[in-house]
Amino acid sequence: MSEQIGATQAVSTLLKAENVLVLCHKNPDGDTIGSAAALCLALQGFGKTTAMLCADPIPARYDYLPLPMFANQFTPGYVVAVDVAGSQLFGDGAKPYCEHVDLCIDHHSANSGYAGLLLLDDAAAATAEIIYELLVTMNTPLTQDIANALYTGLSTDTGCFKFGNTTARTHAIAAKLIEAGADITRLNYLLFECKSRSRLALEREALSTMEFYFEDTCAVICLSREQIASAGADVCDLEGLAALPRAIEGVDVGVTMRQQPGGSYKVSVRTGESVNAAEICKRLGGGGHKRAAGCEILGSLENAKGALLAEVQREICRESL
Amino acid sequence: MSEQIGATQAVSTLLKAENVLVLCHKNPDGDTIGSAAALCLALQGFGKTTAMLCADPIPARYDYLPLPMFANQFTPGYVVAVDVAGSQLFGDGAKPYCEHVDLCIDHHSANSGYAGLLLLDDAAAATAEIIYELLVTMNTPLTQDIANALYTGLSTDTGCFKFGNTTARTHAIAAKLIEAGADITRLNYLLFECKSRSRLALEREALSTMEFYFEDTCAVICLSREQIASAGADVCDLEGLAALPRAIEGVDVGVTMRQQPGGSYKVSVRTGESVNAAEICKRLGGGGHKRAAGCEILGSLENAKGALLAEVQREICRESL
Repeated sequence: MSEQIGATQAVSTLLKAENVLVLCHKNPDGDTIGSAAALCLALQGFGKTTAMLCADPIPARYDYLPLPMFANQFTPGYVVAVDVAGSQLFGDGAKPYCEHVDLCIDHHSANSGYAGLLLLDDAAAATAEIIYELLVTMNTPLTQDIANALYTGLSTDTGCFKFGNTTARTHAIAAKLIEAGADITRLNYLLFECKSRSRLALEREALSTMEFYFEDTCAVICLSREQIASAGADVCDLEGLAALPRAIEGVDVGVTMRQQPGGSYKVSVRTGESVNAAEICKRLGGGGHKRAAGCEILGSLENAKGALLAEVQREICRESL
Repeated sequence: MSEQIGATQAVSTLLKAENVLVLCHKNPDGDTIGSAAALCLALQGFGKTTAMLCADPIPARYDYLPLPMFANQFTPGYVVAVDVAGSQLFGDGAKPYCEHVDLCIDHHSANSGYAGLLLLDDAAAATAEIIYELLVTMNTPLTQDIANALYTGLSTDTGCFKFGNTTARTHAIAAKLIEAGADITRLNYLLFECKSRSRLALEREALSTMEFYFEDTCAVICLSREQIASAGADVCDLEGLAALPRAIEGVDVGVTMRQQPGGSYKVSVRTGESVNAAEICKRLGGGGHKRAAGCEILGSLENAKGALLAEVQREICRESL
């Protein structure tokens, strides 16, 4: 297990390190990318050689960030992981650098403790919040690039300050990043307004399949392989879909079913305060959190939907007892 | 014209006033409602009799706020308007109280100066920001109800901190409101996630009409009376539509055309940085801002669309010179 440390020790350790490689998790999101970029740029400000590495390609939407990617230009002397909760999340492309991680900086309470040192703050809405605190402790200037990188992490992990993980500290840091020059008008458009045409086509398909159950308290959308393919959708497009059904007025249980290449159905369940999503999915072999959970169901669409709806109904009835 | 005053003078004036009536603008939004509620609740904390008045009904989505509505329970001795840029925006239902307004608190730079005293701060993203500063100056405790009311104003006028008017101060105040107990998880769901089924049906209709022009840099959606009626949509549902076409990747000019009861087309134009929406609409008898403008065009759909696209093309060409 990792030795848990505080911000001050993390800073003194980082300032002693040389040739620092910063690792992201696979399927990178704004928080792991923004946190890694900000840390690299800050350490470069101290004259250090650093770079970041991710097993998967960085999505084009983050092109506005100057990302110092690792290309074997130095031999890593110190390895840091940011926003990576377990070593299985590095992905094959990060081998062999992820075999020994010196320091992990993370906000996931379930962090597996794979690194030598661990700076964990699970009250942080994003790892970028922790990186911000480190940079303040380092007394390093927040350049516009660093502010943009940290804002990217902060805003994407909170759905632009909309999700329940957003705290007073999140907003207070956002204020500091704007003062440091974060270009929030452009970033918010790119990250939260702009939709691809394939994503839009997929939404249209999804809305056309929507069905309501249990006095309209449960909404289900279901996408076949053909529908996903005809919309030209990729994984990125599919990700945001799970929030759609639950967003409808009066809906306590939102279900999204996506047919997988093998024919099974990948199911996302999102619930309001009165229904436990994890209980529904657990009984179907899946799991997750109280408000967001998932599972995979084999069989025809009708069978899969029937099995799922039976569990939804059971949970709705149990909760209303 | 109004006498312009600062926050300190506004506070001392308000603390001397008795039987205070606070007026909202017609078609009320979260900022005018939240600002009025917060001001009333704060003044009630000083033992004053106050109430708020709006010419139009308060939309049900704001039901979570305890709104001290005026019902002739006292004779107004001092009249304050919040977030009302001109006297024509009071609406008939606010007569006769809006004939003489003692103090106006507003963030619209185009405020017409109809009130005796004017506290104007056009750098504020929302009038709620100004009310927050007043309450701090009054040294009054921020109750949870006041925090919820101010958060409602702040978040709705900034699209949940997404729009370009969001500043460091906006975030800093949001942080203080959360510390004071603002219930942001519930409010953000109600204000920004939750969509009515009629709104959803309307979005589906709108997406199905989308057409692209000028190498996909211009997207147009067009809704007939029949489509609006069949979706069961109201004005509230129609409002958010204008942002849809411009949100598509690569689209610089987003156009929304809605057929009016008389047969004409109400047109909203939203543009990116490279195209001037106001120029397009001005030449068709309308007007607005550089990024968001509107006009009304008579004639058949084909004629209206043709006239509009000609002006869009002219503006795109002019900008690319």
